[in-house]
Amino acid sequence: MGPDPTAQRQGPAAVPPFGERLAALVARRESQIVLGLDPDPQRLWPGTSDPGAGADATPAARAAAAVAAHCRAVIDAAGPACVAVKPQLACFERLGAPGWGALEATVRHAHDAGLLVLADGKRGDIDVSARAYGQALVGSTPTPFGDVAGLGADAFTANPFMGEDTLEVLVDAARQAGAGVFVLVRTSNPGARDVEDLPLAAGGTVWEHVARTVDRLGAPHDAEIAAVGAVVGATAPEHVARMRELMPRAPFLLPGVGAQGGRVEDLAPAFRPGRAGGLVTASRSIVDAHARGGAAGTPAAAARGEAERLRAAAWALA
Amino acid sequence: MGPDPTAQRQGPAAVPPFGERLAALVARRESQIVLGLDPDPQRLWPGTSDPGAGADATPAARAAAAVAAHCRAVIDAAGPACVAVKPQLACFERLGAPGWGALEATVRHAHDAGLLVLADGKRGDIDVSARAYGQALVGSTPTPFGDVAGLGADAFTANPFMGEDTLEVLVDAARQAGAGVFVLVRTSNPGARDVEDLPLAAGGTVWEHVARTVDRLGAPHDAEIAAVGAVVGATAPEHVARMRELMPRAPFLLPGVGAQGGRVEDLAPAFRPGRAGGLVTASRSIVDAHARGGAAGTPAAAARGEAERLRAAAWALA
Repeated sequence: MGPDPTAQRQGPAAVPPFGERLAALVARRESQIVLGLDPDPQRLWPGTSDPGAGADATPAARAAAAVAAHCRAVIDAAGPACVAVKPQLACFERLGAPGWGALEATVRHAHDAGLLVLADGKRGDIDVSARAYGQALVGSTPTPFGDVAGLGADAFTANPFMGEDTLEVLVDAARQAGAGVFVLVRTSNPGARDVEDLPLAAGGTVWEHVARTVDRLGAPHDAEIAAVGAVVGATAPEHVARMRELMPRAPFLLPGVGAQGGRVEDLAPAFRPGRAGGLVTASRSIVDAHARGGAAGTPAAAARGEAERLRAAAWALA
Repeated sequence: MGPDPTAQRQGPAAVPPFGERLAALVARRESQIVLGLDPDPQRLWPGTSDPGAGADATPAARAAAAVAAHCRAVIDAAGPACVAVKPQLACFERLGAPGWGALEATVRHAHDAGLLVLADGKRGDIDVSARAYGQALVGSTPTPFGDVAGLGADAFTANPFMGEDTLEVLVDAARQAGAGVFVLVRTSNPGARDVEDLPLAAGGTVWEHVARTVDRLGAPHDAEIAAVGAVVGATAPEHVARMRELMPRAPFLLPGVGAQGGRVEDLAPAFRPGRAGGLVTASRSIVDAHARGGAAGTPAAAARGEAERLRAAAWALA
């Protein structure tokens, strides 16, 4: 048995590349499901909304404690059917410094549960700022008081609009940490047609152009699954085969299953380089499973049931 | 004399639109300079690196206290020649929860100094996540424990890659707060050619297409300066006139002056709708002015001198 792919990183030499870690963990857990964590303080699971934070704490501190408790409960319930969690950074940032603390606690809890963490912030910026995002998400920051560890995510999402030089800095930071980058290629929202789908004078579309960049950034392709992946909306299954053609080794992060209308059965081409080639992201469809008609039992039981249903459906396809 | 454009917002009815607030403050302060704050814990001004945080505090807490002290000192030195500050969120996020606390302190100090705050995070995401970013940056988040105030920024930067529906949510959140949005259109880095400059089958480039979206999102144009602006790299002055043609009322945020090679003298078309139409962003050229050969005196004196030089140069042009 190889090294534990969820082990905390000791340094560059100690960490296998992200693609290897991902493929090993998908095989070990028999799951390609990524549990989206988008906590809304007004819609937390019962029993987590009053986690015992002092009533004299600020609203931000109390809400952040409740959000952290909710995320722990969701991970405990649905995590066993998943390979990773995907916290949406916006949902934590809106609670300020305590919210960032809740994010850090959620990352630790997910790692303790044996899950990878994909930080969903869709960052992108010029050189010096991109380096700072790399330090924040997967690296550490040297300071006169000692190194400050970042979030310790195993991968993060990135936005390609500003060009390849901005992505390269993020990819370099990720590689040094044994982490991965999922670049937005063709997303699951209706607005994907506005920029991503634009036909180019040279042929193809903006998203096909970005897909080639993603493939290039993932080279050399010395592993079955690259460290540079793509965010590919599950709501446009007609594109998945073309994406796989353009990015043969990239792991695809496939949001849009469930609440946004995508069906896991439409995603078969994603799994061509191996099961870890297609990661099926689901958030509301798992966390809110209890609220849908006919779902039985507690939020935790309904979430576990829906996550297991998705897991089995994806596993059977690949 | 009208209402104080830097006054803290009491609610939607109490706040004039961002374009009006910006134009009034530019006129009052006779400045179009935006002070970029990209604090690197290894390169803080002397005297701010040991701000008296307890030696038993964590490295993150000590570094965050030093960063906050540095930003206060920079604002006190260069702020009088500026109309706004632009904190780079990545530089604070890399210090975790204490870093977000330093960001909040920096926002408060800038407001106390009479400056607007443009939060530079280049966010962009689908509906529910975009709403969360709006809450985090310019709004507030309802929770069972009371509303949690966001950062209280006066404007923020946004990434258009995922399409108009993602921008609309951010623009709506901003309008409700009397805040503005600066959308990436054509940035100052070499990689701008990779996606932004791509020629489209229908004619024009990706950035020209995005520019039309920015103009549309800023409508109705009932003020001289719209609430929806554009990030327009000062390193490509040949594009500025075309951008003004496509976005007649958008305020332009012009990074790249100084350290990235842009010259304020090349930016005249930006100022066509009025002086507030062109905001000149400078970070390292101001904060590191003392490190350049020939600059006299303390970091504070050198920063104040460089900010004033830029202010006078831009003001003379418009």
